[in-house]
Amino acid sequence: MSKPTPLSGFPELLPAQRAIERSVIASLSRTFELHGFANIETRVVEPLDRLAKGGEIDKEIYVLRRLQAEDAADDTGLGMHFDLTVPFARYVLENSGHLQFPFRRFQIQPAWRGERPQEGRYRQFTQADVDIVGQGELGFHHDVEVMRVMVEALAALPIPPVSFQFNNRKLIQGFYRGLGIADVTEAIRVIDKLDKLPADQVARQLIERVGATPEQAQRCLDLATIRVADTSFVERVRALGVEDELLETGLAELAAVVEGCSGAGGERVGVEANLRIARGLDYYTGTVVEIYMTGYERLKSVGGGGRYDALADDGKTTYPGVGVSFGVSRTLLPLLADGVLVGSRSVPSAVLVAVTDEESRPASTDVAQRLRANGVPCEVAASPQKFGKQIRFAERRGIPYVWFLTDDGHEVKDIRSGEQATADPDTWTPPDVDLHPQILIKEQQ
Amino acid sequence: MSKPTPLSGFPELLPAQRAIERSVIASLSRTFELHGFANIETRVVEPLDRLAKGGEIDKEIYVLRRLQAEDAADDTGLGMHFDLTVPFARYVLENSGHLQFPFRRFQIQPAWRGERPQEGRYRQFTQADVDIVGQGELGFHHDVEVMRVMVEALAALPIPPVSFQFNNRKLIQGFYRGLGIADVTEAIRVIDKLDKLPADQVARQLIERVGATPEQAQRCLDLATIRVADTSFVERVRALGVEDELLETGLAELAAVVEGCSGAGGERVGVEANLRIARGLDYYTGTVVEIYMTGYERLKSVGGGGRYDALADDGKTTYPGVGVSFGVSRTLLPLLADGVLVGSRSVPSAVLVAVTDEESRPASTDVAQRLRANGVPCEVAASPQKFGKQIRFAERRGIPYVWFLTDDGHEVKDIRSGEQATADPDTWTPPDVDLHPQILIKEQQ
Repeated sequence: MSKPTPLSGFPELLPAQRAIERSVIASLSRTFELHGFANIETRVVEPLDRLAKGGEIDKEIYVLRRLQAEDAADDTGLGMHFDLTVPFARYVLENSGHLQFPFRRFQIQPAWRGERPQEGRYRQFTQADVDIVGQGELGFHHDVEVMRVMVEALAALPIPPVSFQFNNRKLIQGFYRGLGIADVTEAIRVIDKLDKLPADQVARQLIERVGATPEQAQRCLDLATIRVADTSFVERVRALGVEDELLETGLAELAAVVEGCSGAGGERVGVEANLRIARGLDYYTGTVVEIYMTGYERLKSVGGGGRYDALADDGKTTYPGVGVSFGVSRTLLPLLADGVLVGSRSVPSAVLVAVTDEESRPASTDVAQRLRANGVPCEVAASPQKFGKQIRFAERRGIPYVWFLTDDGHEVKDIRSGEQATADPDTWTPPDVDLHPQILIKEQQ
Repeated sequence: MSKPTPLSGFPELLPAQRAIERSVIASLSRTFELHGFANIETRVVEPLDRLAKGGEIDKEIYVLRRLQAEDAADDTGLGMHFDLTVPFARYVLENSGHLQFPFRRFQIQPAWRGERPQEGRYRQFTQADVDIVGQGELGFHHDVEVMRVMVEALAALPIPPVSFQFNNRKLIQGFYRGLGIADVTEAIRVIDKLDKLPADQVARQLIERVGATPEQAQRCLDLATIRVADTSFVERVRALGVEDELLETGLAELAAVVEGCSGAGGERVGVEANLRIARGLDYYTGTVVEIYMTGYERLKSVGGGGRYDALADDGKTTYPGVGVSFGVSRTLLPLLADGVLVGSRSVPSAVLVAVTDEESRPASTDVAQRLRANGVPCEVAASPQKFGKQIRFAERRGIPYVWFLTDDGHEVKDIRSGEQATADPDTWTPPDVDLHPQILIKEQQ
């Protein structure tokens, strides 16, 4: 074997970084479970006819074939999932007889897309999804609930502040309809370009492509520029003078979501109504959200989701859902690469038990077992080098304590301060902060 | 979408079963981390030239191609890993400059093999591997250490008793060499058939294929039938009258492993020297182990591993390793299918907070938040049905408690006993046993 090189788009983490990722995943899971969401894990493959729907994403799907299949074209008919929504919808249909609805689940797994790798976009990436799915119907209050869960979940993470930007498809559609715009879908598609084009060009396209009058176009732009951190958007939309029943429902729903999520994440999570968020064209039917991270706006959204009135459908029953997805890899990998998040050590060990000589290794192993009995992660030195070398062995791994067996008994040294004291392996524990690896958060570069 | 059917060889779990799998994975991780093993996760793909080595397994490798690649034969050159050893070896080589050796890692991930599915064998399956790898050299004491960690890890799991059956390749090779058998490799291959063939046929093959004399064949069989739960095998091997330096090293190593592991797992883990364990032909160079589960001998081993003097090699440096792998899917899926392990509930929620009417939902949500602040997982009822229906809603999910807001204040009902009492949402917590889903272990069928 020659020395291998990394594979573009398939990032891997060193142990200290992986400890951060695991801690983030554990924290997300903890919040989701406190809210009663059950974890599931789906297989990584789906039949191709469920994955490939003729959309843009199709060409990014990885298809599996057996290495020594007779014919290179002899595929298994299976592709790797490119998100967690498609497999979740399939899981719900397949197991509907065994699930209790509304079914509340979270799922934290990798997905795969054969796209061009860039910062925040990888060929293998981990996502964390929470969804609530109903059988036949699903009350609107679940929109507030699931969004609030993600607000709390991200507030608990050691990442820069994030902002949840909410909108509602009923609000947009109702507004356009009330305004007299015929092709609502095309209008949304054009307004979605506000990211890339100046407002006057967007207005011109509304007139040319959607057949809007200049006044209608202006009001579409007026709507899209409303962005507030409270429910004052309701009055501002009403001031635009459009009347529509669906618009009223959308306004009420969006107000409930903004109100229900505000403050749930403390100072570190912003909650806004941003009336130009559309989140693609199909699929969503009510609440929509995009999540952005302060200082990392270049990544575009680090998460998003919304309400879909037909997450799944087996011909007899429709399963409406509402959910939100957080890009674990998209968020963490740039933070790790930039040195914003640093792990305090590369091993779980809080203590290195020194070895005096090979003959007394069993005594050192015994100390380690007694420390472990109290939940202290530790390891025994690999070889009976001079104590100075063993201390450096610990230092290189970031292990804060070294334990010595001396003729007089036991001593433990904090190798950061140099402080050394006698200790009893049956009762000694380090301060809580030293028990497990810590995540050090540095000022952003 | 029509109702989907399960995909053979790609098992998935219902939420209550998945809770068991997660709890098992958490328990394994806890033990590994107490012993200072760092977790890593490798990407699911490897370049084909690292995976396909011309062996039997090659035809089971899944290869990736992009769905809309120009040509069906236009593969990515990537295949999915079929174990965790190949990616680990590659990871060590790739990151050798950033790792501290001996490097102690655990890895719990799926692997994929396109083989015919059967009980205990799946196309996607999860394994838990612990290994220690050195740079240039790795002391023998790490053999004892890593095996002991797995003994402790399995002892902590809610599974039937397991048995670790150890042998040592140096012992076998030294014995055969000392006996005067020229083709040691072929002799091991023949002895390995003792599982399937009667002893006299194996003896005949030793004579015919390996060129052994009848007396040599008999002594090979004598060695292979030694199986004891202590170090008395040393005397029994010596009694066979073969002398060889490598044999002596092997005897000493095997005795140290058996001694070091005995008792580490209490009553629930057996530790034996079983001198016919060979574990394949190549690769291993010292300690070898197979793990069997009581009552599930039909699964063959549920784990195994050993010492390999060249886990990886980059042309300049050799990386010896010792490790052991536990088949999480292979073990758990049959136990779940047989109803030996049953989850106590399908949701994390310990409490369902009832809703009196839609108007007072915020009051119920507030109670839930106060319970969560004390670490009590809970959920709010989906709709303000009659209380009897809300209790059945909880019952179907296995949620043990329902919380009511009455005119007089708060009351919590244990729906199993029917007992109901006033409670304060800021201080009430359920008994520990009810806080999280439990694993119920039934008598084996």
